[in-house]
Amino acid sequence: MNSGSQPLAIGIDIGGTNTVFGVVDHRGNILYRGAISSRQHSDVADYVTELHAALQPAIKEAGGIGAIKGIGVGAPNGNYYTGSIEYAPNLLWKGIVPLADLISEKFGIPAALTNDANAAAVGEMTYGAARGMKDFIVITLGTGVGSGIVINGQVVYGHDGFAGELGHTIIIPGGRKHYSTGAEGSLETYASATGLRFTTLELLEKDPARPSLLRDYKPEEIDSRLVYDCAIKGDELAQEVYRFTGGLLGKALANFVMFSSPEAIILFGGLCKAGDLIMLPAKEQMEAHLLPIYQNKVKVLFSELRESDAAILGASALVWELK
Amino acid sequence: MNSGSQPLAIGIDIGGTNTVFGVVDHRGNILYRGAISSRQHSDVADYVTELHAALQPAIKEAGGIGAIKGIGVGAPNGNYYTGSIEYAPNLLWKGIVPLADLISEKFGIPAALTNDANAAAVGEMTYGAARGMKDFIVITLGTGVGSGIVINGQVVYGHDGFAGELGHTIIIPGGRKHYSTGAEGSLETYASATGLRFTTLELLEKDPARPSLLRDYKPEEIDSRLVYDCAIKGDELAQEVYRFTGGLLGKALANFVMFSSPEAIILFGGLCKAGDLIMLPAKEQMEAHLLPIYQNKVKVLFSELRESDAAILGASALVWELK
Repeated sequence: MNSGSQPLAIGIDIGGTNTVFGVVDHRGNILYRGAISSRQHSDVADYVTELHAALQPAIKEAGGIGAIKGIGVGAPNGNYYTGSIEYAPNLLWKGIVPLADLISEKFGIPAALTNDANAAAVGEMTYGAARGMKDFIVITLGTGVGSGIVINGQVVYGHDGFAGELGHTIIIPGGRKHYSTGAEGSLETYASATGLRFTTLELLEKDPARPSLLRDYKPEEIDSRLVYDCAIKGDELAQEVYRFTGGLLGKALANFVMFSSPEAIILFGGLCKAGDLIMLPAKEQMEAHLLPIYQNKVKVLFSELRESDAAILGASALVWELK
Repeated sequence: MNSGSQPLAIGIDIGGTNTVFGVVDHRGNILYRGAISSRQHSDVADYVTELHAALQPAIKEAGGIGAIKGIGVGAPNGNYYTGSIEYAPNLLWKGIVPLADLISEKFGIPAALTNDANAAAVGEMTYGAARGMKDFIVITLGTGVGSGIVINGQVVYGHDGFAGELGHTIIIPGGRKHYSTGAEGSLETYASATGLRFTTLELLEKDPARPSLLRDYKPEEIDSRLVYDCAIKGDELAQEVYRFTGGLLGKALANFVMFSSPEAIILFGGLCKAGDLIMLPAKEQMEAHLLPIYQNKVKVLFSELRESDAAILGASALVWELK
């Protein structure tokens, strides 16, 4: 399958439930893909052993381990500098886990690790909407809000490897309490799928007389997808939810632009399926809160990577950055 | 005066009223200093001619122009990429002024230009509190609030040369209206000397029965220095002003840390004279608003550069970065 002239990369994305992986070529074609559970082994060495076994057919097909330049890993709380996962609340392995070293030893090739949002940024730069850009920010709008920041063509890892937690910046001081961190008014409490659901429930409760298609559903059935469907059908309350969510995101984006003055902001993740419902208020509020020197300069784009591929592609792209 | 073995740099800082300049050695000693008005010439070419003439004695003393590696300029709205001042509201020269080119041609040596806060960051990295650091943020707390951001040892200029306007990030949505930009709730409207004065007047007005030493003064006499003096004397209202101002600054710093995860934040400018009155609430509120992974890691320091020297030093330090 591989011509042999160009090396390949393995991309591994570790989620709280599943680990997905693939073998990827320079152009971002995924030649092979697979998955294992992230929750099967409480000992991380056993997990690495299963991962190694699961990847053998792919490595064989690629022409052996010599055809593969390295392994990139995207993981929650992944620290690029140390190659460790550090105190990830949603994984079985506690404390500091030197996963890049464990994987590199097991496979016999170099490995690099970072968090999933940083991996997404490298993926966009290598294969996606940020090709050719040196200054951009990726915001992931999923269950939570993550970010990967690129300045001068380099991912910003910061002094300790943990830079780029824009989902936890405070945008409404004293605002909604974060379900996990306890912080009040952070971006994630509003601009995530979880936050959008809370906003919907709040609006439904605030004025019980206000009509909405969403009243036909039980609270536990309400999610961002359903709110989107209702908004598309013309439901005003559902539309307000997206206007509010997108608008808050836009205000936060303005602050980020005044930090690093990027060429583009790239939005990725589940909430992007809402298209203009989220993009238009985000752009409008971003522009309204920018200093004039930044106005009408910064592109706001949706990711060009397929969501099912992006995690593997982003992780694999770390390999091309290996020295 | 110069041994001749090491090159020297000229640093020029252009303020709205005065231009100060100096000849600086590698260690940050200012060997010669001088000043001219920034407001004498509506034609920028005449201004450059006067600047050139004013620097001749210093250049002669340094051993001629051959002893000088280059010229660094700090200026409002200075764009590092283009070497231009772009639409500076407080200067006589309107539109886009290619000042680095004009100066380089006139003097016959390379010139670089950036805004004053970025120059301050380079100055701290070269001669000051950020020596040896690769990731830090300088916040200037003067009449306004400026910022210079360094990541991986490089000043962040962004896609267009205008990165790092942290004073204009919104920290209280719908908050105090900015006297110049019209933005509501930006950091500068609170954490500048101007903002601190407004906070004081608001507190005095809010509860006219509340005693304060500041009531012995006319509103137009109240400035950050006087509020500091009263706070030191134990005046509770004045102390509250600094607690509020420092606390808001700290909340903003938390957001900046979650962007670039710096080793240190360095505070510079007039408000720093208040020492612990501003530092303690800033540190406390920063820590309170950080994710745990960032807590108790980031140093908050005062600049080590004398304020009267810092502008010249910062501008001169640009020269050592010249390729």
